[in-house]
Amino acid sequence: MPGVTAIPALDLSHHLSLEARQRRPNAMKMLWRLTKRKPNMISLGTGDPHYSLYPIKAVHYEVASTAEDVEDPVSAWREASSSSSSSAPTQWFSSSRDEPTSIPLKTAMAYSAGAGLPEAQRAVTSLTQHYHSPPGDHVCTLTLGNMDGVTKLFRLLGSPGDHFLADEFSFNALTNAPLSHGISWVPVKIDKGGLVPEELERIMEEWEESVHGKRPHVLYTVPSGQNPTGCTLSVERRKRIYELCHRYDIMIIEDDPYYSLQYADEELSEDSRHLLMPSFLSMDVDGRVLRVDSFSKIMMPGMRLGWITSSQFFHEHLVTLNDSSTQHPHAFGQIFVTEMLSSSGWQLEGFDKWTRSLRREYQRRRDIFLEHFEKEVASTGYASAERPQAGMFVWIKVHIRQHPRYRCDVRDTLKSPMRSNVPELMDELFEQCLDAGLVVMPGSIFVAPASESTLKLVERGVPIQDRVNFLRTTFAGEEALMQPALVILGQVLKEFFQK
Amino acid sequence: MPGVTAIPALDLSHHLSLEARQRRPNAMKMLWRLTKRKPNMISLGTGDPHYSLYPIKAVHYEVASTAEDVEDPVSAWREASSSSSSSAPTQWFSSSRDEPTSIPLKTAMAYSAGAGLPEAQRAVTSLTQHYHSPPGDHVCTLTLGNMDGVTKLFRLLGSPGDHFLADEFSFNALTNAPLSHGISWVPVKIDKGGLVPEELERIMEEWEESVHGKRPHVLYTVPSGQNPTGCTLSVERRKRIYELCHRYDIMIIEDDPYYSLQYADEELSEDSRHLLMPSFLSMDVDGRVLRVDSFSKIMMPGMRLGWITSSQFFHEHLVTLNDSSTQHPHAFGQIFVTEMLSSSGWQLEGFDKWTRSLRREYQRRRDIFLEHFEKEVASTGYASAERPQAGMFVWIKVHIRQHPRYRCDVRDTLKSPMRSNVPELMDELFEQCLDAGLVVMPGSIFVAPASESTLKLVERGVPIQDRVNFLRTTFAGEEALMQPALVILGQVLKEFFQK
Repeated sequence: MPGVTAIPALDLSHHLSLEARQRRPNAMKMLWRLTKRKPNMISLGTGDPHYSLYPIKAVHYEVASTAEDVEDPVSAWREASSSSSSSAPTQWFSSSRDEPTSIPLKTAMAYSAGAGLPEAQRAVTSLTQHYHSPPGDHVCTLTLGNMDGVTKLFRLLGSPGDHFLADEFSFNALTNAPLSHGISWVPVKIDKGGLVPEELERIMEEWEESVHGKRPHVLYTVPSGQNPTGCTLSVERRKRIYELCHRYDIMIIEDDPYYSLQYADEELSEDSRHLLMPSFLSMDVDGRVLRVDSFSKIMMPGMRLGWITSSQFFHEHLVTLNDSSTQHPHAFGQIFVTEMLSSSGWQLEGFDKWTRSLRREYQRRRDIFLEHFEKEVASTGYASAERPQAGMFVWIKVHIRQHPRYRCDVRDTLKSPMRSNVPELMDELFEQCLDAGLVVMPGSIFVAPASESTLKLVERGVPIQDRVNFLRTTFAGEEALMQPALVILGQVLKEFFQK
Repeated sequence: MPGVTAIPALDLSHHLSLEARQRRPNAMKMLWRLTKRKPNMISLGTGDPHYSLYPIKAVHYEVASTAEDVEDPVSAWREASSSSSSSAPTQWFSSSRDEPTSIPLKTAMAYSAGAGLPEAQRAVTSLTQHYHSPPGDHVCTLTLGNMDGVTKLFRLLGSPGDHFLADEFSFNALTNAPLSHGISWVPVKIDKGGLVPEELERIMEEWEESVHGKRPHVLYTVPSGQNPTGCTLSVERRKRIYELCHRYDIMIIEDDPYYSLQYADEELSEDSRHLLMPSFLSMDVDGRVLRVDSFSKIMMPGMRLGWITSSQFFHEHLVTLNDSSTQHPHAFGQIFVTEMLSSSGWQLEGFDKWTRSLRREYQRRRDIFLEHFEKEVASTGYASAERPQAGMFVWIKVHIRQHPRYRCDVRDTLKSPMRSNVPELMDELFEQCLDAGLVVMPGSIFVAPASESTLKLVERGVPIQDRVNFLRTTFAGEEALMQPALVILGQVLKEFFQK
């Protein structure tokens, strides 16, 4: 990052997947660079259509204003978008063919490099620098959103037969993705503070290659407002986990879409940074962190643009992977973020104001949700929940042992020492919620699938099948429906436990 | 496709890659569908931010008008974009939070399905239906542009150890991409009419699994204005190739970005279709064609949106692949194409008018280019070129055997029966072009890399290393620079051959 005396990264090239080692940079692009050796070269080389034939003259985005006179942009915006009578101040992010703008339209709409347009790269770099100040020689690579970023990192680091560590409950779509190319998961126990460092240490200490296979060399984790549990790692745990990853030579994929949505019971501050947990990136002296950022939760998911921050080495491999798969991201999103952070857009100050205001908004929703939860659900005595310090999820624990049909003696010795009927009971509860008109996500679908060979190592104590007595709920949805939803949940629980 | 009595596709499921067979659909999405079973469900299930918090009110694209009074939209547009004094009529494609539009902004900006938004899918389906009328039960899947589409198909069909057939000269970035996951190429000879069907037949007939490995089951080809050779397959060749693929059970990846840029020496017609070659898709009774379409060459490359048309079976696998890699495409592009083809946009008529006009424009450029080429280059006697019937490329043949230092007795028996110094001479020529300030693409970089085991089978007659005496040039670039570029090329050739 500019302006920092960068700590040189360790040589971590042995973490590359077989595929990444075999992937060759695009010869066209290499040749292309070669041809820039003289000024005023005439080119008959590319296959680009001529920019005068792009049928577009301007792109305009009308967005919420974060100007000085708008103190709390999100609440004004929310009211305006929910009612047709009120309005909130707006401003424009634009790119034009004929007017000077931060990215000229004709450049943005042409083919570009796998890392993204330099202007857009600089824009996201300014965010990373502001919030994380990584100590090393880190570089940003644009992605097509969080899923694209994380799955590309799985490709970059994972070869068939590899083991990746993950929070034992993880977002299913992501842990599902690398299974088909032969990656196995090693789930690490989490408690209400998130991933338990001692468990990570125990697994690495007790790992035997002859029994369990190749040692895990990647940890995939969501440090703030974890999906699905809503947990946030404390500073102490983050430091401890980083140390362990250093000790056992583990790469960290830090997937942090809820970073900006960390709640605190303090007043809005002019500088957000002291409210936000230090990221793994911020402590990455080794160059072992690959941080994935997303605009989906703080702007809009349909934007499909995000970025990865990594050491220069992994950046170069990511660019090669981009060049040989999706290519660079779309111009529309690159224009949006570049204009957003430019002097004619929100700038960093406006972005920070928006996310501060958004944080307050979600915190308000969280508190309303939990208030209804206490009254309608917790009061039944059949369920409880922790107050999430970040993100969008409340992870509801169902007190399943109180169920009259609960059994814990259903043995299935092949797989694990103890086996209860918790999964079956939770399935019943899920069905009863659906029948009553309520959609919640059953905990069971978030169980990171452990490989057979590591099951015994991973599962000390109560196996995870017997701990799936959770429901993932969100306070990000329709505000007016929170109470009716939780009323249904309370009623369903009562019927479920009492009948 | 709607409105057609679809021919049911053959069962071609054995063509799926190992990875595709092992890939599991996203459990969240499956569960999600399950929860739609009743109306008025209340959801606490998703992780979507609330749409009232998307900081965007409207997206506007100011584009070239294709209204009735604009007869030849491209030439008016080109003049306006090249000079600041003139202007061309414009119209707007817009999506708004508060006004009714073809895709409501709040839907477009949310998470959606791997196939794309239904509205955008319908838009591209209408194009496919109009131009190709596929006979089978074909479905469109949105992609993030041509490279994303083609490389996803490579993933869908290719397992390590597989062989894919391709034009012997192919776009390097694409043939490069699947090498790292263990796909080998089997280059098929091309002549000035493109891929030679008899060569395809010979290779398949002479293939021995014990010698050459797994039989090729995929043909990757660019049928119109092929990159880099500019060749276009005749109707007869297309039919013959399709028949051969049926006989040998080969899937066809039809990569056709230059489809709309097919030139004819006829007047502009109100209906383009009779000027355009029938695509492989249009004859696909088996469901073995996976057609890749792109807006990059006819709109703008930075758009990064395209689509694949395939049988329902492969569509479903593509959606699963999208869901577990990039996710659905960005809203911005989906809004653009949906609004473009909607009643408030260009509609199909306007799109066809634009592409007809664009065709005329590139044809004009082609003819100017070839005129200068005749005068400045062909006149030297050291090079010649065919007139391309489609696309953007002129594939210049250098008459290398006339070079005083040409030799064809440099034997390298390990690799091939005959070995000349053509590659070395062409490298010299390339360097001399660069030194003179001209960028052209050397033919050698487009050689599809044949695996060792198939080299003897593939290379009958003169091996490809001895036939790399080509330069890829384009007439899509700066018009005013065509002549100076070709003057340089003529001079360099003279020096190269005479010194």
